[in-house]
Amino acid sequence: MFSPQPIGHIKSPYQQTKQIPKGPGAKHDAEGVLEILPQFAAGLTDIEGFSHLFVLWVFDRSEGFELLGTPPLDDRPHGVFATRSPRRPNPVGLTIVELLSRDGIRLHVRGVDMLDGTPILDIKPYLSSISAEKLRRGWLAEAEARRNK
Amino acid sequence: MFSPQPIGHIKSPYQQTKQIPKGPGAKHDAEGVLEILPQFAAGLTDIEGFSHLFVLWVFDRSEGFELLGTPPLDDRPHGVFATRSPRRPNPVGLTIVELLSRDGIRLHVRGVDMLDGTPILDIKPYLSSISAEKLRRGWLAEAEARRNK
Repeated sequence: MFSPQPIGHIKSPYQQTKQIPKGPGAKHDAEGVLEILPQFAAGLTDIEGFSHLFVLWVFDRSEGFELLGTPPLDDRPHGVFATRSPRRPNPVGLTIVELLSRDGIRLHVRGVDMLDGTPILDIKPYLSSISAEKLRRGWLAEAEARRNK
Repeated sequence: MFSPQPIGHIKSPYQQTKQIPKGPGAKHDAEGVLEILPQFAAGLTDIEGFSHLFVLWVFDRSEGFELLGTPPLDDRPHGVFATRSPRRPNPVGLTIVELLSRDGIRLHVRGVDMLDGTPILDIKPYLSSISAEKLRRGWLAEAEARRNK
């Protein structure tokens, strides 16, 4: 395997988990900054050409994992790999953000759902999308339907 | 940080890197199997309701990293965070696959671009997509335009 190292940290408006919008209907339009460590700055070359980025990060304030858990806004348990729970065997989070601008080692982005100070593992360009007609959203679609009854 | 552990391994038709289709126009419709370790089986509960999954995995046959590199099918270097190069500070790969069927701890999927035996770090449901009109693809779009001239 490998030894994870932060390539930078996230500046986010969220200091506590309970401040982060959660669940199917949650809007993630909070702005934040991906602050990359100076030694990795060259890795950002040409990143400003992309409108959206994958950010891989560490749930550094989560402990242990739970294979079955009940997500916010549902009332029944689901497998951890069918949810975005922070309590995962490998506590890695994944967020798609919109890149607003770059200022040296600082990437200003929209769509953060991480806590302030969260370590960043990786950034990748977001390239493709699955069309809405081809996408099935499993228990989430069902939980939404129950809530809207 | 954390100590990465495999939650399973990928069965793929690719034994060598050069067999994997690469570059902007590459089609990833190879089928494969995500074989999850029995101790994590409960984490798969309800996963069959999703049509597409994010798979996080380890570039276990890649060594070191390179902040600037020239991707296949382009002739100029780009920052590692603007590419999907395997030589990353944290060697984690990300692939969106289509879930075809589940057979216990085996997920049959389409769209693998990993080597056979690659360790899996995490699986997450793929929930959203960015519309084509809102997406900019940076140097990739430019490289495609140059190749099509």
